[in-house]
Amino acid sequence: MARYLAITGGVGGAKLALGLTHLLGPDELSFVVNTGDDFEHLGLHVCPDLDTLMYTLGGVSNTDTGWGRAGETWQCLDTLAALGGESWFRLGDRDLAVHLQRSARLRAGATLSTVSAELFAAHGIAHRALPMSDQPVRTLVHCDIGTLAFQHYFVRERCAPRVSGFSFAGAERASPAPGVLEALGAPDLAGVIICPSNPFLSIDPILAVGGVRAALAACAAPVIAVSPIVAGAALKGPTAKIMAELSLPQSASAVAAHYAGLIDGFILDETDRALLPELASDTLRVTCAQSVMSTLDDRVNLAHTALEFLRAFQ
Amino acid sequence: MARYLAITGGVGGAKLALGLTHLLGPDELSFVVNTGDDFEHLGLHVCPDLDTLMYTLGGVSNTDTGWGRAGETWQCLDTLAALGGESWFRLGDRDLAVHLQRSARLRAGATLSTVSAELFAAHGIAHRALPMSDQPVRTLVHCDIGTLAFQHYFVRERCAPRVSGFSFAGAERASPAPGVLEALGAPDLAGVIICPSNPFLSIDPILAVGGVRAALAACAAPVIAVSPIVAGAALKGPTAKIMAELSLPQSASAVAAHYAGLIDGFILDETDRALLPELASDTLRVTCAQSVMSTLDDRVNLAHTALEFLRAFQ
Repeated sequence: MARYLAITGGVGGAKLALGLTHLLGPDELSFVVNTGDDFEHLGLHVCPDLDTLMYTLGGVSNTDTGWGRAGETWQCLDTLAALGGESWFRLGDRDLAVHLQRSARLRAGATLSTVSAELFAAHGIAHRALPMSDQPVRTLVHCDIGTLAFQHYFVRERCAPRVSGFSFAGAERASPAPGVLEALGAPDLAGVIICPSNPFLSIDPILAVGGVRAALAACAAPVIAVSPIVAGAALKGPTAKIMAELSLPQSASAVAAHYAGLIDGFILDETDRALLPELASDTLRVTCAQSVMSTLDDRVNLAHTALEFLRAFQ
Repeated sequence: MARYLAITGGVGGAKLALGLTHLLGPDELSFVVNTGDDFEHLGLHVCPDLDTLMYTLGGVSNTDTGWGRAGETWQCLDTLAALGGESWFRLGDRDLAVHLQRSARLRAGATLSTVSAELFAAHGIAHRALPMSDQPVRTLVHCDIGTLAFQHYFVRERCAPRVSGFSFAGAERASPAPGVLEALGAPDLAGVIICPSNPFLSIDPILAVGGVRAALAACAAPVIAVSPIVAGAALKGPTAKIMAELSLPQSASAVAAHYAGLIDGFILDETDRALLPELASDTLRVTCAQSVMSTLDDRVNLAHTALEFLRAFQ
């Protein structure tokens, strides 16, 4: 059986992930998910990217806000704010249940992999989503006001500080979660898709986990990435702003360069077709697609393009 | 200034406490509250009796259920149940905020006294409510199916098991919270009221904390108790059932006997007036009052009776 692996972070990645699940069954497709964004908040173990994927694949994501659950209520957070508690991180009442259950299971000694599998199953999701590691890895954002934990940068400070770099505390010592290296080394692996997530904040933490970058570079199957930068802007989130602050060109080309040595193919948005000639080379195939995913059809169509692109490497 | 101290547990005690706050200002009245019911649940530090008093004095108690908050919602708990989590303890969305905030403050190193003062203040309560101790004391219920943590007996098992006794783990080693012994020894203490709470489950844990029983017995001011047993039945909760299982008469007289050596006065319900002659003695004054508190007027009237009763000792 041809198996595929998708590497994903937050909202953009989850959209393509949903499209892929419409084309590939649970035996054919697995996910490796960023946990560098995870943090302990109010004693709860919060996994934003795992939950974004879970809510998206489980059909309960809030498509208005682009994060959190549909039909969410805020009684707990409103009360917490009235008590003078920390309310900058928007924890909905239903979302809280996931964090309470995850935290309780982790305290009871279960691994993050096990707990994630339980939670995905409880959401009716048959596809396997592996956290990048069962050990804590924490993305740190080095910026003009100091070094911030990721959620402090991303949510509390709304990405306003100027970024000079990132580090992933614990990544080198961390082991990939059970199944990650096995998936990358599987003889029937037919392709790897790096989803259109933030390369610096969503994908790099995964690559930083001990052995993952090397395993991806050595992977026998073709590896492709979908650009999260379209026409010089990020569809969502701070990717373009960060690239500017890191003195990188705010372009899909810079994303492709960031993944040099790892990817065999790159998907540009149609609006960036002019970049194709300069990007394509003997070692990098490039194609264009409509990569802005507004509707479910958009998600499935992009997934279809990605799979066809991978299959053309055979 | 004449100062009063009320010793209280759950719902019945909180009703009289509310009545007392209508007659005595924050400088005149303090509370000592049972924390033997406290427990760690889903990583949260839950203090049922402190919260019952806080919600009652703060005007947000749920008078329909007799526990929890008015206008409560259950999104988190319903979701937790759907995830296969522990849902036997009814944590409402707004109630959860209190537990999250308390737990966060305790983890940050604040004492339970400090955190309770903060939470009561946030609920607009000026009267001081002291937990019996800042150290953990845990009521254990010895019963036919083994020894149960209090909430497991009370909520999960709905008081169904047959009780043979109680113990208060940690009580002897625990110190009274700052202010408890000071209040009992204050030269201007004008009286102590043991509220109509369960003697075994709400008041005994307080008395078991190192030094409290002795300080109450040695207290220069008069000490009175209000019977939680009316006409041989408890108004709420398992008091009468427990007394039967402990082979005690299910009567107000047995409650008075339980407090022998500690109390100088005892308030019977009017319906138990026939017990007055046998109970009254050289060392125990007894009076009758309407002790069933259905309305706010009932609460204030009983509080008034208790204060007049105490003042008559002068």
